[in-house]
Amino acid sequence: MNIGSYSVEDYMHLVKSFHGNMAPGLIIGGFMVDLAMQEFSEGVLFDAISETQTCLPDAIQLLTPCTTGNGWLRVLNFGRYALCLYDKYSGEGIRVFVDTEKLEAWPDIKTWFLKLKPKNEQDPSALRDQIIEAGASILTMQRVTMEIASFPKKGKGAIAACPACNEAYPAKDGPLCLACQGGSPYRRETQDAKPALKIVSSTQDGNR
Amino acid sequence: MNIGSYSVEDYMHLVKSFHGNMAPGLIIGGFMVDLAMQEFSEGVLFDAISETQTCLPDAIQLLTPCTTGNGWLRVLNFGRYALCLYDKYSGEGIRVFVDTEKLEAWPDIKTWFLKLKPKNEQDPSALRDQIIEAGASILTMQRVTMEIASFPKKGKGAIAACPACNEAYPAKDGPLCLACQGGSPYRRETQDAKPALKIVSSTQDGNR
Repeated sequence: MNIGSYSVEDYMHLVKSFHGNMAPGLIIGGFMVDLAMQEFSEGVLFDAISETQTCLPDAIQLLTPCTTGNGWLRVLNFGRYALCLYDKYSGEGIRVFVDTEKLEAWPDIKTWFLKLKPKNEQDPSALRDQIIEAGASILTMQRVTMEIASFPKKGKGAIAACPACNEAYPAKDGPLCLACQGGSPYRRETQDAKPALKIVSSTQDGNR
Repeated sequence: MNIGSYSVEDYMHLVKSFHGNMAPGLIIGGFMVDLAMQEFSEGVLFDAISETQTCLPDAIQLLTPCTTGNGWLRVLNFGRYALCLYDKYSGEGIRVFVDTEKLEAWPDIKTWFLKLKPKNEQDPSALRDQIIEAGASILTMQRVTMEIASFPKKGKGAIAACPACNEAYPAKDGPLCLACQGGSPYRRETQDAKPALKIVSSTQDGNR
């Protein structure tokens, strides 16, 4: 059994190195991406949606060309453990979700997925074994069409200098950047000249 | 000159493989992450913020333990090319941004960053050379403190079955899941039994 072009074991190593631990949801996520991708012909450009922000986005990023930073992955946090890959031009797509009706044969997956017991009463090793054995059999696939027009247009447009922070920002955001309009999560911002100088000089020495 | 534990060249290969292309913003992003990380002692657990959704989140994901799926990376899309790494308990952090005042010595970086010319009139190879030569010298670092309490609590809480779609979702979201409350971007959702059966049987054959 493979996940994408990886053996399950190699995929789990990749997950550990990128995500930090071998989260059960990411193993299931691997089977979900794999199932959806099989429905696309070679060369079709697809975008991805994760309907949860937990774990699943990383399976998508590891196994498809879609990442947070290249804009081909969107997280629409509906709290459902589901993903969708869709043709970025036609909007035709494949949605895959964990089907709770198919979990009856897999008591440890069901207990974990529906949080039927506290974590410390669950058996992580039995859970992992069941997930690998179950593979795609706990998933259901749907054909969907995306409302592509409903997504905000990408592209920043013209760049301006914010009169408050002096940083570059998309002019279309208004007379100030969105952070200076009140969005900033920082309690204080203080320019720290010393470390910046330190870095500049070590860069000039070429010894970084 | 290195970016994290990589040579610049190795980092650019990694970028290409994960992000799909050697985006200039991701090379700068590498220097930004590197600069911020040098301020943290070994063993400090930090979370990350990207103040833009373009490119920079991928530099963070490649060079730190913080990813979209593990929840340690947050994108707060202020449209500023800036990031912040902060101690997840104290909120004390380092913010790094591209300092437009430092771009005067680097005309190709300035032209690209401020979009002073259409893309097809820019010189991507000169741009890349200047970015690598400039390194961290175009960046400024600030010490900040995060308003950690202002972030919504993580954790899904109890799980319920949505009476509309029958999928599992966080009960705290309301009587229906957020997608069935009207958030769904799908124009139609049709269960497609055929491919699901196909997959199930090939899984049982063990030949996937």
